[in-house]
Amino acid sequence: MIIYQKDDWFQAIWHFHSGRTALSIFKRLSWVLAYLIVVTIVELHYADLRLKNTPGEFLSGMGILLSLMLVFRTNTAYDRFYEGRRAWGTLVNTNRTLATYLNALLPATRHNDRLFFAKMLSNFSFALKNHLRNSRDLTELEDADGQQLSTLQHYDHLPNGIMAQIQVRKQQLYTEGLITDSQLISLDSMLSVYLDVSGICERIKSTPIPFSYSFFIKLFILLYVGIMPFTVIDEFGYLTIPAVMAVSYVLVGLEIIGEEIQQPFGTERNNLPLNQLSRMIRLNIHEIMQLYMPPVEKDAAKPAFLIVD
Amino acid sequence: MIIYQKDDWFQAIWHFHSGRTALSIFKRLSWVLAYLIVVTIVELHYADLRLKNTPGEFLSGMGILLSLMLVFRTNTAYDRFYEGRRAWGTLVNTNRTLATYLNALLPATRHNDRLFFAKMLSNFSFALKNHLRNSRDLTELEDADGQQLSTLQHYDHLPNGIMAQIQVRKQQLYTEGLITDSQLISLDSMLSVYLDVSGICERIKSTPIPFSYSFFIKLFILLYVGIMPFTVIDEFGYLTIPAVMAVSYVLVGLEIIGEEIQQPFGTERNNLPLNQLSRMIRLNIHEIMQLYMPPVEKDAAKPAFLIVD
Amino acid sequence: MIIYQKDDWFQAIWHFHSGRTALSIFKRLSWVLAYLIVVTIVELHYADLRLKNTPGEFLSGMGILLSLMLVFRTNTAYDRFYEGRRAWGTLVNTNRTLATYLNALLPATRHNDRLFFAKMLSNFSFALKNHLRNSRDLTELEDADGQQLSTLQHYDHLPNGIMAQIQVRKQQLYTEGLITDSQLISLDSMLSVYLDVSGICERIKSTPIPFSYSFFIKLFILLYVGIMPFTVIDEFGYLTIPAVMAVSYVLVGLEIIGEEIQQPFGTERNNLPLNQLSRMIRLNIHEIMQLYMPPVEKDAAKPAFLIVD
Amino acid sequence: MIIYQKDDWFQAIWHFHSGRTALSIFKRLSWVLAYLIVVTIVELHYADLRLKNTPGEFLSGMGILLSLMLVFRTNTAYDRFYEGRRAWGTLVNTNRTLATYLNALLPATRHNDRLFFAKMLSNFSFALKNHLRNSRDLTELEDADGQQLSTLQHYDHLPNGIMAQIQVRKQQLYTEGLITDSQLISLDSMLSVYLDVSGICERIKSTPIPFSYSFFIKLFILLYVGIMPFTVIDEFGYLTIPAVMAVSYVLVGLEIIGEEIQQPFGTERNNLPLNQLSRMIRLNIHEIMQLYMPPVEKDAAKPAFLIVD
Amino acid sequence: MIIYQKDDWFQAIWHFHSGRTALSIFKRLSWVLAYLIVVTIVELHYADLRLKNTPGEFLSGMGILLSLMLVFRTNTAYDRFYEGRRAWGTLVNTNRTLATYLNALLPATRHNDRLFFAKMLSNFSFALKNHLRNSRDLTELEDADGQQLSTLQHYDHLPNGIMAQIQVRKQQLYTEGLITDSQLISLDSMLSVYLDVSGICERIKSTPIPFSYSFFIKLFILLYVGIMPFTVIDEFGYLTIPAVMAVSYVLVGLEIIGEEIQQPFGTERNNLPLNQLSRMIRLNIHEIMQLYMPPVEKDAAKPAFLIVD
Repeated sequence: MIIYQKDDWFQAIWHFHSGRTALSIFKRLSWVLAYLIVVTIVELHYADLRLKNTPGEFLSGMGILLSLMLVFRTNTAYDRFYEGRRAWGTLVNTNRTLATYLNALLPATRHNDRLFFAKMLSNFSFALKNHLRNSRDLTELEDADGQQLSTLQHYDHLPNGIMAQIQVRKQQLYTEGLITDSQLISLDSMLSVYLDVSGICERIKSTPIPFSYSFFIKLFILLYVGIMPFTVIDEFGYLTIPAVMAVSYVLVGLEIIGEEIQQPFGTERNNLPLNQLSRMIRLNIHEIMQLYMPPVEKDAAKPAFLIVD
Repeated sequence: MIIYQKDDWFQAIWHFHSGRTALSIFKRLSWVLAYLIVVTIVELHYADLRLKNTPGEFLSGMGILLSLMLVFRTNTAYDRFYEGRRAWGTLVNTNRTLATYLNALLPATRHNDRLFFAKMLSNFSFALKNHLRNSRDLTELEDADGQQLSTLQHYDHLPNGIMAQIQVRKQQLYTEGLITDSQLISLDSMLSVYLDVSGICERIKSTPIPFSYSFFIKLFILLYVGIMPFTVIDEFGYLTIPAVMAVSYVLVGLEIIGEEIQQPFGTERNNLPLNQLSRMIRLNIHEIMQLYMPPVEKDAAKPAFLIVD
Repeated sequence: MIIYQKDDWFQAIWHFHSGRTALSIFKRLSWVLAYLIVVTIVELHYADLRLKNTPGEFLSGMGILLSLMLVFRTNTAYDRFYEGRRAWGTLVNTNRTLATYLNALLPATRHNDRLFFAKMLSNFSFALKNHLRNSRDLTELEDADGQQLSTLQHYDHLPNGIMAQIQVRKQQLYTEGLITDSQLISLDSMLSVYLDVSGICERIKSTPIPFSYSFFIKLFILLYVGIMPFTVIDEFGYLTIPAVMAVSYVLVGLEIIGEEIQQPFGTERNNLPLNQLSRMIRLNIHEIMQLYMPPVEKDAAKPAFLIVD
Repeated sequence: MIIYQKDDWFQAIWHFHSGRTALSIFKRLSWVLAYLIVVTIVELHYADLRLKNTPGEFLSGMGILLSLMLVFRTNTAYDRFYEGRRAWGTLVNTNRTLATYLNALLPATRHNDRLFFAKMLSNFSFALKNHLRNSRDLTELEDADGQQLSTLQHYDHLPNGIMAQIQVRKQQLYTEGLITDSQLISLDSMLSVYLDVSGICERIKSTPIPFSYSFFIKLFILLYVGIMPFTVIDEFGYLTIPAVMAVSYVLVGLEIIGEEIQQPFGTERNNLPLNQLSRMIRLNIHEIMQLYMPPVEKDAAKPAFLIVD
Repeated sequence: MIIYQKDDWFQAIWHFHSGRTALSIFKRLSWVLAYLIVVTIVELHYADLRLKNTPGEFLSGMGILLSLMLVFRTNTAYDRFYEGRRAWGTLVNTNRTLATYLNALLPATRHNDRLFFAKMLSNFSFALKNHLRNSRDLTELEDADGQQLSTLQHYDHLPNGIMAQIQVRKQQLYTEGLITDSQLISLDSMLSVYLDVSGICERIKSTPIPFSYSFFIKLFILLYVGIMPFTVIDEFGYLTIPAVMAVSYVLVGLEIIGEEIQQPFGTERNNLPLNQLSRMIRLNIHEIMQLYMPPVEKDAAKPAFLIVD
């Protein structure tokens, strides 16, 4: 995730063009460029298909609808991005509150239980992160007493597996009498958040904007950029090429950014910093429950951002 | 539901035109084509009703309002689509949390009860799916001990019937003392989600966008497309036909896609994958509660999507 | 409430013009027509006040703001419509969940109590419906044991009165020990939904969009339609009349539909089907609690809609 | 708060111009008028600074951004208005549910307690209303047994003071055993709504739209109206004055209405009817808890609105 | 935070230009000015690159998309501002309700406990405020009995540390029997709000609008302002400079205000008054729990705003 400062206006513009999204834009624009060169040369030297006055207006009518659809697409993509961020924010908040709760509830003599919850709650974030990134990496998870990870192997859906184990342990403590009835109610409502967050993120990942809308916007851009050179070539001559390229850059760019933003769980530049969030969750839980954590992990959990204020 | 990859831009455009929605668009466009041919020939060879300069501007004023109304319609349709998806997402989440909860609560010795809840909770999704698709197919439901399905026959509203049975069983376990008071509170709040989801989906299905708005947008498009040829024929001649066809395609297409998206529970290409979601819910519940499930069902529950990242 | 099929495009257009809303539109449009005839005749034969080029542009600037305000109005009206629908949807869902809950909780030996709750919960919807329609019709309510309706007479606000009786009965069962502590908590949270729904609907009914906005949009339309003929008469001649009528139809129509939609509890064509929803609630409750209901009432509760899919 | 009927289109237009908002608009417009007269006379008779073709287009580009910003402003103001209304609606709903709850819970023999809650819950609305209107009027509050109002004197923040007393009384009844554990939970969740509503309303009141946005829109309008006469004087001559006045009326009006609506707790024509809502709350509570209330107060609590339907 | 009165229209315009945001705008505009002077002189005296008719239209098409993107940006920034304000509002509300709750729950004999909660709940707001402003200032926190602040030193994340101590104290009172089971449930649900608010604010702070969007809008403005002089110089001559400056002012200004508003926790003029809100929370808690507070602190907690109404 790129973080930027408030005042580096010109720098920001150059900084952008190195990610995969930018490559994707450039690939498309090179097709547009080839098309424009052919059209311009043919028009100016061989055939005259120039459309005059009215088409410009005709195009501007379509341009408004296209602009509105692009903003609709931008809004939708941003909502998905932000919903994903909010879900992970909820995970952070619940982990912290739950850690303060368990810290007060579990006496220091129950070190094993304290360790179990600290490790497993932290694991949930890492497991969810990997699940959302189509990876099944257990090396980032930590064992409490050498049994959890081996049990987890039997689950296809790791976050489900982790929560299943947490519920079982909670039930044991409740049967034992360590957790009272009213505490159970509070714990249950906090624990229900975990799989909600997991489900929300999976929903965002597996439900893109309906194909028809995505398709329509692509078609619109294709039509618009395809017709444009004929309507301006009369006035612009060879300047048609940079002019239409500038417009194409804006339209194609917005569309591609929308596609990247709407899948916020990847590892591209605009995606969510799930690694850092998972590490921060682990760090917070350990600090609150007064468990040791190596300093190197503490540093890794720091957000890599800087807001000049 | 069509799932698409990020980079297949041109392919996506051709892929679209085979569903029923596309047919519906083509049917309307063929009417427009016939109209355009008649108008163009009559105008160019027999009568001169060409409207000049001002009408173009006049049309562009209406065009902005039409564009805004189409985006309003698109927004509304998408909100309904997404609300439906969110409701099913909630169903997924609650089923998972409830499964981890019951798995911890019900000891292995209560195999019958474990089976009952696993089967009936899974059945709810299938029953709701069929209910939303106006079907009453009990073959997809599974019996726990041979009594549930026969009781269900007496209910017109199957999801209600399933929940009624689940509540009765829960009440028995509570009376028996297996479920404590505080556990009952947690269970009750989870169980209340099921009929909420059912009601939300039924509401989306039975309440289309108010008829007046739907009608107005149709009328707008008709007026706009009907007047358009007269205002551009002077400049375009026979090119009027492809030009107005392109505009009609965009307007009619957006409207029809809106109509399809706003009823997200059907089986069209842009509708929600309720079959896959129901199977995934059953799979998750069985995995969490450690009940056997045939591998063939496991494969069927995999989401048929692929995001190249 | 008009329900429409997906494919009856042309039919839908003619179907619309018979309700009271349509009459209201036609009344206004006849004023516009009279104005247009006078202006056109005076302009073309007696006086020349024709505004040329610039006014058209001037008008188009105002047209964009007017379009945006109309879409704001449409959005606001639709939100109110949908909030009302959502409130009634919540009423449906809570009634169903509560019915499954009470069905499991109250043993068959407590037939009187089962009857009391089934009748009174059903009554709530009918009482609310009539309250929202400014009627005080007790004939649609059903007595459980001959005492409820006579007590209700003392209440000005019938939904409040019904809920007051339900709470008293619930308290008796709780004192008696039939309802346990944890069940009381679940019941209380479900019962609190009823007066929330009632209050939400009353709020929608009693708080129209602020008068200033409503007024401004009306004034805008008046100004826009009033100036328009002068700017196009030069080009259109007698065609000014149909052209401005078409624009007026669209603007006035959108405004009037907005006014109708924003009060969704009436009995107009675009209003919510409160009668059918109330009957469906009663039917669901009786089915779930296994109480007899005459088949004729069952049929009346069927939603009168048909989605061709 | 002005309530209007559906069909009084022309009447509504004239009805509007008597409130303070209208005065505020007229004051600004008289400045615009003076400016316009000076500009027009100087331009037509002494100096020629008329800007031609391009400026019109230049202005229309800015006009779109201005229109969008005005709609953003309108939306924001309306959201605040509606959030305020929703908060008071929540207050109404919770008071009703709580009244039905306490009516069932407190036996008739505890008349003092019934009276205490009825009076103090009603007082909360009046105290909040006055607090939001910067008044500290205790005369509208009612004492239950002669002690409440004198205690309230010690509080700067009256709604806080009322809730503090209610909580103390609730705690006494709980200690006494009249309120059971599960009832306490329900009561607590209802009581927590009161200070939430209070806080929401205070937040709306104390946090206007950020100054920069408010300022920018004002500046935009000033620029737009200031430049406009130069771009149309060539075509319009002395008609420039009414034309620009009409545009100014629309722009200034929208801005001023936005400022009025966004502070919905005042006593202007578009503000919320807090007096009537407070009286309705008191009436509802007394009716539900079967306490006497003078008929004159009953009449005062009737909403002063009329929807012709 | 600037608070403004309703009627100081002209004054407001001049008041604005002294903050850091304004400086930031002026810095950028001086670059634009230099560019404009060079372009205008070169164009008018040396080279002729003037683009005529079509580019104007071409620019207006892009102008609409730019306007929509700027409004999207404005909306997004305002949503973040308002979400931050709402989070702090929730903190205010919960503190008040919790204070009334604890005041009724803790008998006067438990003065130490009353003091502990009053001080620590107040401290949370100050700690959060400093945390959001990247400061770690413990001097604003108050000790209850000389132990809290020294324990806090061990925490990197002060709000977490405060909540951990509050939970421990609550657990002690519960074990002691002072807090009953049902009271614990209410307390737990109130206490969970604190770290939620903290997490929401941190999320807003650490997740700016995706870099790509921020970048695109900057690029758009650069392109638009860069091309504009060539399209109007033909008509305007040296008036090109003030005209393009006015447009640049509006575009650059909106973008910069968006950047300031979207980080609402700083100390700039449009940021949230966190100091005043923290002091108000402390004041409210002390008043409700009847603890002494110096009058000077009471005055400091008064909101520094004035709404003339």
